[in-house]
Amino acid sequence: MADENTVFIGNKQTMDYVQAVMMQFNNGENDVVIKARGRAISKAVDVAEITRNRFFEEADVDDIMTETEELQDEEGNTNNVSSIEITLSR
Amino acid sequence: MADENTVFIGNKQTMDYVQAVMMQFNNGENDVVIKARGRAISKAVDVAEITRNRFFEEADVDDIMTETEELQDEEGNTNNVSSIEITLSR
Repeated sequence: MADENTVFIGNKQTMDYVQAVMMQFNNGENDVVIKARGRAISKAVDVAEITRNRFFEEADVDDIMTETEELQDEEGNTNNVSSIEITLSR
Repeated sequence: MADENTVFIGNKQTMDYVQAVMMQFNNGENDVVIKARGRAISKAVDVAEITRNRFFEEADVDDIMTETEELQDEEGNTNNVSSIEITLSR
């Protein structure tokens, strides 16, 4: 599955996502991708920074990509939302 | 001056910063650096995405760096804050 080493950032606490990233590394993944949209982007950067500085210094930011996604709201209107993908690699 | 092609993201509207970035490119800069801390990071990504998709398709994201900065609050306590630097290049 393509998304098995991916952590999607939502409304939970930052540390919950740090823990999710660490679980992936502890399961043997060499790369973990942190994805977020809109306001969660700031939290995604926090998760990457906290993971590599405090929990897993072996990891580093391998790549960061940004994109614009078109999302449809309930009324069918299209909204542009920025997204980010941060790849942490050991 | 090192910071002359840099736009710092703060509390103004997203489009104000897009305009600031465009001004730099119109002044002949080949690279414009968009910097933000904490919650403004999401807005920085919006500014980069809107600039390159809607205003200046010649520009592309050249580099994105994240960092942890130690900031002191008024009481002298140290807080860790994530920051981002997005380099747009023509």
